[in-house]
Amino acid sequence: MTYSLSPSPAEVREHARSGKLRGHTSGMCPGHVQANVLILPAQYAADFRRLCVRNPVSCPLLAESVPGNKGFPDGVADGGDITTDVPGYKVYRDGKVVEEEVADVRAYWQEDSVAFLIGCSFTFEDALEDSGLRVRHIEERRNVPMYATRIPLMPSGVFSGNTVVSMRPYSAENVERVRAVTRPYVRTHGEPIAWGWDALDKLGIADINRPEYGDAPVIRDGEVPVFWACGVTPQLVVLNSNIEGVVIGHAPGKMLCLDWRVEDILAE
Amino acid sequence: MTYSLSPSPAEVREHARSGKLRGHTSGMCPGHVQANVLILPAQYAADFRRLCVRNPVSCPLLAESVPGNKGFPDGVADGGDITTDVPGYKVYRDGKVVEEEVADVRAYWQEDSVAFLIGCSFTFEDALEDSGLRVRHIEERRNVPMYATRIPLMPSGVFSGNTVVSMRPYSAENVERVRAVTRPYVRTHGEPIAWGWDALDKLGIADINRPEYGDAPVIRDGEVPVFWACGVTPQLVVLNSNIEGVVIGHAPGKMLCLDWRVEDILAE
Repeated sequence: MTYSLSPSPAEVREHARSGKLRGHTSGMCPGHVQANVLILPAQYAADFRRLCVRNPVSCPLLAESVPGNKGFPDGVADGGDITTDVPGYKVYRDGKVVEEEVADVRAYWQEDSVAFLIGCSFTFEDALEDSGLRVRHIEERRNVPMYATRIPLMPSGVFSGNTVVSMRPYSAENVERVRAVTRPYVRTHGEPIAWGWDALDKLGIADINRPEYGDAPVIRDGEVPVFWACGVTPQLVVLNSNIEGVVIGHAPGKMLCLDWRVEDILAE
Repeated sequence: MTYSLSPSPAEVREHARSGKLRGHTSGMCPGHVQANVLILPAQYAADFRRLCVRNPVSCPLLAESVPGNKGFPDGVADGGDITTDVPGYKVYRDGKVVEEEVADVRAYWQEDSVAFLIGCSFTFEDALEDSGLRVRHIEERRNVPMYATRIPLMPSGVFSGNTVVSMRPYSAENVERVRAVTRPYVRTHGEPIAWGWDALDKLGIADINRPEYGDAPVIRDGEVPVFWACGVTPQLVVLNSNIEGVVIGHAPGKMLCLDWRVEDILAE
C-alpha cells in the first residue's frame, strides 16, 4: 500500500465516513472544489435558494439535493452520502445548537431534508500557494480563522443575518495580487471583501486574535488582514432566523470535498 | 390624434428623445421593465460586470452593450438610442459630476463607451398597485425618495461603495404582503432589504425627510418606511472609485423604458 500526500476527494470522503478523518480539510485535494454544507427542512428551501441568489458572495450555491435524497448529482461527489462524508457536523433544532460537533448525522436526517452545497474559499488556496502567496494557516497547519461581522445580508423570506468572513494575512504590497488571483473564483467567494487594519472597524471585528470559528491567526510584522466572505454565513443566518425543525451544517473548516475540479467552476 | 394614458415604451423613448418628456418615469409603461443606465469606458467593463454579479440585489444587470454601440439587443428597446432616449442624464468625468442633468449625451459618448442596463424598482410598482398596496409617490405624483446608506457592496476590482435604497411607506401589517408581491422581481431588486423605523439606524439614514435623490416622502401616521435596493447605486460607486474618463448615468428616477414585459424577467 502506497502512502499518498494528496488523497483524492473520494478517499477524503471515505476517511470522513469511516472516522479516520475528524480534522479540518484546509490544504486537502488541491485542484478540487470544497463545499460548505447546509441541510434544511424542505419548507425553507425556496427562501434559502433565494438567499443564495441574493447573496452570491457569502452564499455561492453550488448544488441542491432532491428532498430526502442523501446522494449528489452525477459528478459532484460520486458514491457519497451527505450524512456521513463530512469530517464533522453541527446540528441545530428550532434555531438552537443541539450538537456542537458530531461525526455523522444519520440520526438527524429527515424525510424532507434538503442539502445545499455552498462554495468554500479553501478551493482557491492552492492557486494562492502556486502564485507564491503562501497561505499562513496551511503553513502553520491550523484551521483558517473566521469572524462574524456586522455586514448584513440581503434578506430572503424567513432568512436574515450578517456575513461571516475568513481571514488570511498578507503584506500590504501583495494585496492587489491576492485580489487578482482569487477574483475568478466567483463560485467560492471570489476576491476579498475587505483588507487592511481599517477593515476591522468596517466589519465590526473587535479582536483579530479571537475569531468566532477556526484557529487564532498568526500575523507577522508588516502584514495586514485580508477578509473573504465565508460559507459559514448560512449557519449564523439559521441561528438568527428562528426557523423550526432540524438544521444541519458542517463543523466550520471541516468541508465536503467534491469530485468537481476547480477549472469546472472558474469564471472567465 | 388620440390621447393615451399609457404611452408604450417606444413612445416614452421617443418623447424623451424629442424633449417632450423631461420628468421621472414612475408609473409609466405598466407591465414593462424600466432600467437604470450606466455608461463606462470599456476598460472598466469587466470589473463593473463582476460588481453586478457580486451585488445582484443593488445592481441587477439586465443587459450590456457592445463597446461603441448606442443600440440595444433585439427586443430590449427596438429603434432606441442610449444617448438620447432617457429623460435626463447625469455626467461624470474623472469621478466628478460635470453635468447635474442634461437632456442627451451625444456629445459625451465615446468610441469605447459601454452601456449597462440595471433593473429598476419602478418595474414592480404596478404589481403593488394591482394588489391594493398603493404606491404613495405615484398617488402624490412625485418621484420616489432615494437614500445613500452605510451598507457596503461586495467590491470588484476598481469598484467599491455603499448601496442606495428607494423607500415606499406602508402600514406595518402590510409589510409581509409587500415583501411577497415584490419577491419574484429578482431582476429589479426583489423584496425589500429593510423595513420599519429601526431600519434607519441599520442603514445609516439620518433624516427620512431629506432623501439624497428624488422627492421628499409623504409618510402617514401608523406607516413605516420600507426600503429596496436601488439602481442609482452604481453612480455612487463611480463617485467613490476614482475612475478616469467619462461616465454617464440616468438622472435618478428618469429611467430608460424597455420593450421587455415584466413576465419575461420574473423568477419562479
